[in-house]
Order: sequence, then C-alpha cells, then structure tokens
Amino acid sequence: MPVGLKKPEVNTILSVPGIKLASVKAGIKYKDRKDLSLILLDEGSVVSGLFTKNKFRAAPVQVCQNHLKAGPHKRALLINTGSANAGTGSEGFDNAMQICSELATNLKVQTHDILPFSTGVILTHIPVNKIVGQFTSLMGSLDESHWLEVAEAIMTTDTVPKAYSKKIKIQNEDIVITGISKGAGMICPNMATMLAFIGTNASISESILSRIHKEIVEDSFNAISVDGDTSTNDSFILMATNQAQNKLISNEGDKNYEIIKEGFFEVAKYLAHSIIRDGEGATKFIHIEVVNGKTKNDCKEIARKISHSPLVKTALFASDPNLGRILAAIGNADISSLLIDKVDVYLNGLTFAQNGSIALNYDEALANIEMKKTEIHLKVDLKIGSEHSSFWTTDLSYDYVKINAEYRS
Amino acid sequence: MPVGLKKPEVNTILSVPGIKLASVKAGIKYKDRKDLSLILLDEGSVVSGLFTKNKFRAAPVQVCQNHLKAGPHKRALLINTGSANAGTGSEGFDNAMQICSELATNLKVQTHDILPFSTGVILTHIPVNKIVGQFTSLMGSLDESHWLEVAEAIMTTDTVPKAYSKKIKIQNEDIVITGISKGAGMICPNMATMLAFIGTNASISESILSRIHKEIVEDSFNAISVDGDTSTNDSFILMATNQAQNKLISNEGDKNYEIIKEGFFEVAKYLAHSIIRDGEGATKFIHIEVVNGKTKNDCKEIARKISHSPLVKTALFASDPNLGRILAAIGNADISSLLIDKVDVYLNGLTFAQNGSIALNYDEALANIEMKKTEIHLKVDLKIGSEHSSFWTTDLSYDYVKINAEYRS
Repeated sequence: MPVGLKKPEVNTILSVPGIKLASVKAGIKYKDRKDLSLILLDEGSVVSGLFTKNKFRAAPVQVCQNHLKAGPHKRALLINTGSANAGTGSEGFDNAMQICSELATNLKVQTHDILPFSTGVILTHIPVNKIVGQFTSLMGSLDESHWLEVAEAIMTTDTVPKAYSKKIKIQNEDIVITGISKGAGMICPNMATMLAFIGTNASISESILSRIHKEIVEDSFNAISVDGDTSTNDSFILMATNQAQNKLISNEGDKNYEIIKEGFFEVAKYLAHSIIRDGEGATKFIHIEVVNGKTKNDCKEIARKISHSPLVKTALFASDPNLGRILAAIGNADISSLLIDKVDVYLNGLTFAQNGSIALNYDEALANIEMKKTEIHLKVDLKIGSEHSSFWTTDLSYDYVKINAEYRS
Repeated sequence: MPVGLKKPEVNTILSVPGIKLASVKAGIKYKDRKDLSLILLDEGSVVSGLFTKNKFRAAPVQVCQNHLKAGPHKRALLINTGSANAGTGSEGFDNAMQICSELATNLKVQTHDILPFSTGVILTHIPVNKIVGQFTSLMGSLDESHWLEVAEAIMTTDTVPKAYSKKIKIQNEDIVITGISKGAGMICPNMATMLAFIGTNASISESILSRIHKEIVEDSFNAISVDGDTSTNDSFILMATNQAQNKLISNEGDKNYEIIKEGFFEVAKYLAHSIIRDGEGATKFIHIEVVNGKTKNDCKEIARKISHSPLVKTALFASDPNLGRILAAIGNADISSLLIDKVDVYLNGLTFAQNGSIALNYDEALANIEMKKTEIHLKVDLKIGSEHSSFWTTDLSYDYVKINAEYRS
C-alpha cells in the first residue's frame, strides 16, 4: 500500500499542447496489459536527458545519449516494459537501433529523432518484432489527453500510476507542465528502473532547459532512495514544445527563468516523492533534513547515510524509537567537518539528541507516539555552518524482502 | 540458525599462558545471565588495539584509545554487555573512567593499565555500581581455561559463542593463539558491536604486534559486512604475554614474523567469518572474490558494492539466480578503471556473465542448483590488472528485518 498516494484524478492531469501520447498491448512479457508507449512531439520541440551513472548502462540509455549528442530537437520517445535490454551487449544495442530506425521510417523522421526507453528484466533480449509490429496501432491512438494512460503503461512493480500537472502564467500565456514517472525501488532488479518524463508548452531554449534540468534533479530524483541502488536504465527527460507565445526564455537572467524552473521543480519533486511513497514494501514516508552543515555535500552525505542504513530503516518500520541507530549512522558519514559534540537530532519536532548525547528532556513515550506516524521527519542540526540538504526514503519492511526475494518466481 | 557454525568443543579452545579469564552475572540488563567479564594479563604483556572509525565513538572506546596512548603494557580488559555506554556524553566517559579506576585499585595496578569494553543498548547510562560490586567475585573466579565461558558472556544477539585456537611451533616452543569474538550485525543497534580479543604467549615486540594487527585486519574484520553499518563500539584487540621462550620477534625481517602473522590471521579470519555465519537472519555464507583489478582498493570497492546491495542480498536469500542485479551492483562502484565489456562473473564456478553480457552457454537450471546451496562463491574477473580482494557477507532475509525491527520490544 502506497503511503499517502492515490491514483491521480483524470481531470487533474493536463494536456500539453504539442505532445501526443499512446500506449498499446505488445505482449512483451505479460499478455493483456499495456506495455508499449509512444510520446510524439511536434516539430520544434527541444529535449534534455539525464541518465543513470551506473557503468552497466542499458542499450537504450546508450542510444538516447548518442541521439541527444546529435542535437536537442527530438520527435518521439518510445517506452517499453517487460525487458530492460540491459546486459545484452552489442546485440542489445543493435536491437534498440533497429527499433528506432523502423519507428523513424513510420513517422517519416530521422532515426536520431527517436529516444528509446526500456524497463523490465535485465539480461534478456528485447523482442524487436513484437514492438515494431505495434507501431501502426500506436500511431493510430495518439492523443494529447493520454498522459495518465501512459503513466499506467510504464509501471512495473509500481502499485499506482504517478502523474502530476502544474499550470502557471508567463506573460499572460497559459503554461502547462505535466509529468509522469515510474519506479518503486531505485533499481527494481528484474523490473528495473526509474523513468520520468516531464513536458511543457513553454518557449524555452535548449541550453536553458538543460540548465534547469541539472538544477532541479539534485533535490528531486537525486535526493530519493528506496534501497541505495542505481539502475542500469534510469532516465529523466524534460521536453518543451515551444508552442506557447511567451518570449523565448534563453538566459538565466530572464525573470521567467525562476518561474518556469520552480514549476518544473514542483512537478519533479512530486513525482520523485511519489516513487518513495510507492516504494517497495514502504509503510512510512521519511524526510531526512540535515541543516547548518559546512557544505551542502556534507549535509547530503549525512542524509544519505541515514537513509541507507538498514538498521535505521528497520527501526522505523517497527515504529521503535531506537534513536541511537541514527547517531551511529551520522557517525559513519565520511565528513571531516563533523563535530559530534554539537549534533542535535529531532524526530517530528521532538528533540531526542542534544550535543551528541541523549537530550535531557527526552521522553520515550512521546517518541513512541511520533514513531507510529506514517510521515516521519528526521532533522539533524550540525551547528557548524549554514548549508542544508534534504533526502527522502522509506522504511525497510518484511514486504521489501518479499517483493525482492520472490519477484521472479 | 548459523550457517555451518557450531559451538566449539571445549577441548579445542586452548589456554594461553599468562592470560586468565572470568565472567559473572552482574544483572546489567538481564537477570541470570553472565554479562561481565575480566581478562587478566600477567605483567610484561603487550596489547594492540584497533577501534571503530564511527565518529560517535562510545565512551569505553575513547578510554581505551587514551590508555593505549600511555603505552602498550596493559594488565586487564573488562567487558560488559547490556549497555554500550555510547551517546552518553561526558557522564558516560566519567563512568567508564570510574570503573577503570576502581578495578585498578582492586588489582593494584594503574588506571591506564585497564581497557574497558561495552556492548548493548546505545543512549543509556552504564550502571557503575552493579559493575564495581562484582569485582571481588570476578577476581575470585579467574582461570586460564575460561576462554569459551567469556565468549558466551560477551554475546548479544549472537546465537553461538565464537572461539578458535591455533597451536604453532617457533624455535621448538609451543605457541598458542586463542581468540574470541562477538557480533551478529556489524552494528547490532541496541545491542551494538563487534568485539574480538586474540591472545598469544609468543614473545613479540609491541611495534611488531601492532604491525601484524594492521596487516591482518584488512582481510578479516575489515572484509566482512552484515548490513554495511559500523558500530560505535567496534574493538579488536591483540595481546601477547611474552611468556614463551622464543627469541623476541622484533622486526619484520625475522623469519618468524610471517609464521606468527599467519597464525594470528587464521584465528582472526575464522572469528570474522563466524560473525558472518551467525549474521542476523543469515541463511547463506557468501564469499565475494574480485580478481584481476587494477588496484586492491578497486577490487575491494566492487566486492563491497555487491555485498551491500539489498537487491543482490534478497535474490541470494530467495535462491533466485537474478544475476543482472550483480552486474548492476558492479556498475555502481565508483571505479574509473572498470571496463564493463570485459567483466566475467562466476557463481560457484559457473560462468553467467562474459564480457559484461549474458554468457552464451549460461544455463539457468544449473544456476538454480548452485543458488540453493548455503555456501555461495561469487567471483568477478575484471580482466584489467593483477590485484584481487575478497569480502564475506550474508543474504538479506525476513529474519534480518524481524531481528532488527523487533529487538527492543
């Protein structure tokens, strides 16, 4: 059961002028479920892509990166579930290229105008013919209203589709930003991967889109963790169709730069948090905030250590205020500036550690009440600087082990 | 149930001339179990200590480090379970010092001749009076034959006591090396800590003992992981009573240097592996071997990534040859020299990945048979150098979550 997350209402997910979507049943792994999706962009659209840092990049990730090097003007994104096309060597790469080339022919565009995405079982080859055989059907069902449908078609171990829209005004123009994502473990082994696609009709240059992308990813998708692993296929895409009549946003001094960035960030953050709320076996949504550190990196490293500690995560699952585990996790961070005699830690506003030791007024009965809540806020005050960072994670439950141990059987 | 590990037979654990041991029931946390132990060293003994790198070092660790700075000649080690005396600030430090000082008075030695060790609940104060009240009783029951008794008294979530002896000859002298250890999670939250004590009667200088210590820890206690966390109290101690009549080993050119080092290493490795075999919820003993890397550090980093991946560990628990997870874990290592197109991976000798992709002759039916075994050997061949490193870990089971989620209740 996701933590505080439901399937979005259809009417809350808004169309983006210039982007049409479709999904069909290609029978890649399961019969009778939609597993192949197409996102078609009108001419003039620009795209920015960020991908996994895992050295075992899947074939579609390699193809995406090559195609983006050829320029930011893209026309179509093709997404399949059921096979990740990862660990498949040169044959996997050739398969991904063949699929792009056939789609390009159908759409009458260049092969490098296509970006392919795959998620599913690692170490199996992708069924090229099943996919190519669906292109006519896919192209026949394209519509601007199909965001939620595609959000469902790209799910793997996700239990709810993830989608979010934001409407803003720039120079009196209606700007829509709509995004979808999938992922329930950062790597969801056989069913790998985090994917996110966010589109807007705003007029924005490629270099500014790419800049915004790098800025917003740090505190959204790069600040979440279910299990600390990074998939071979992780991809995060921004798309701008440039169809709105706002003056092109082409430098960061433009006052609309911050406005559109905030819009993108709100959508990205919502989608990132949705992945955590739907995390494998999650029973709690945990926000770890580290404040007053010397550098932002120091703060993030400590937040990451806490969020990756199986001991902290099992204590949170048990609603046990076993708070020494949090101090031990902080102490494991490789941060030279850390002064443990200064560290304060708060659980949903309740002080439990003060100057690196048990708080004098700590009351375990009160901590017990807070630990039972499904939304947990752990705040660590380092008291050695003025930087801060947040990280979001889940607890570690029996169901996490169950989902990951038993998936393939 | 520990994996391939039983309580040692009493007659296999040998006394070390010059070391007497005792343990008593002090009622620190539980009634009616032995929880306080004393290891008394004859005059002339030298001691070397290695401690946790966690910045939240417990009070007894701080005291040990101070006392070792005063010189290597120590007379007694005092070990309690039930309270870790960690996260207890200056009061905790003063308590540890008071205990040492009282014991020193009783033993008619200096306070800095005492090394204290604590394991148990973090963030609680240690009951000084209960401990001091047992000194007479402890001193009255000292005996050279009590190694196994103390191995039992220092257990926390361990299910079997861990002890091992090795007998060697140096210059026709009988040299005994006996060690005990405890620990079942690298940090076992409330019941923190890995502790290990190894003693010998060999004549060996302090500087050489300390050198051997640093050499053997890398491939023994620093090459194991249950959950990737490091405790606030981890301590590993070597003791030499210098009572054997061998010529003092005081430089590494001495041919007996390698002989005594190998003896210490065999004992340390056995004790380290015992901790993994008794790991919380462990159903498998997993040896990860990375070979032909550019540096030993590169190899260890990859081995560590595999051993820390919850996805690999749950697959191993499920006996599911979900081998893409291992490639993904390798790809997550931050190793610039890694060439993924060269990586071969073997499961108990069976090739499953060749040159970074599925092996052509891979047969899942055979992999299934190997995965069901309780002893798993994963070998990663990087094919870019000549260095190698090994790491040992457990799988991640329902019981790991259960033990860590429910311990305090």
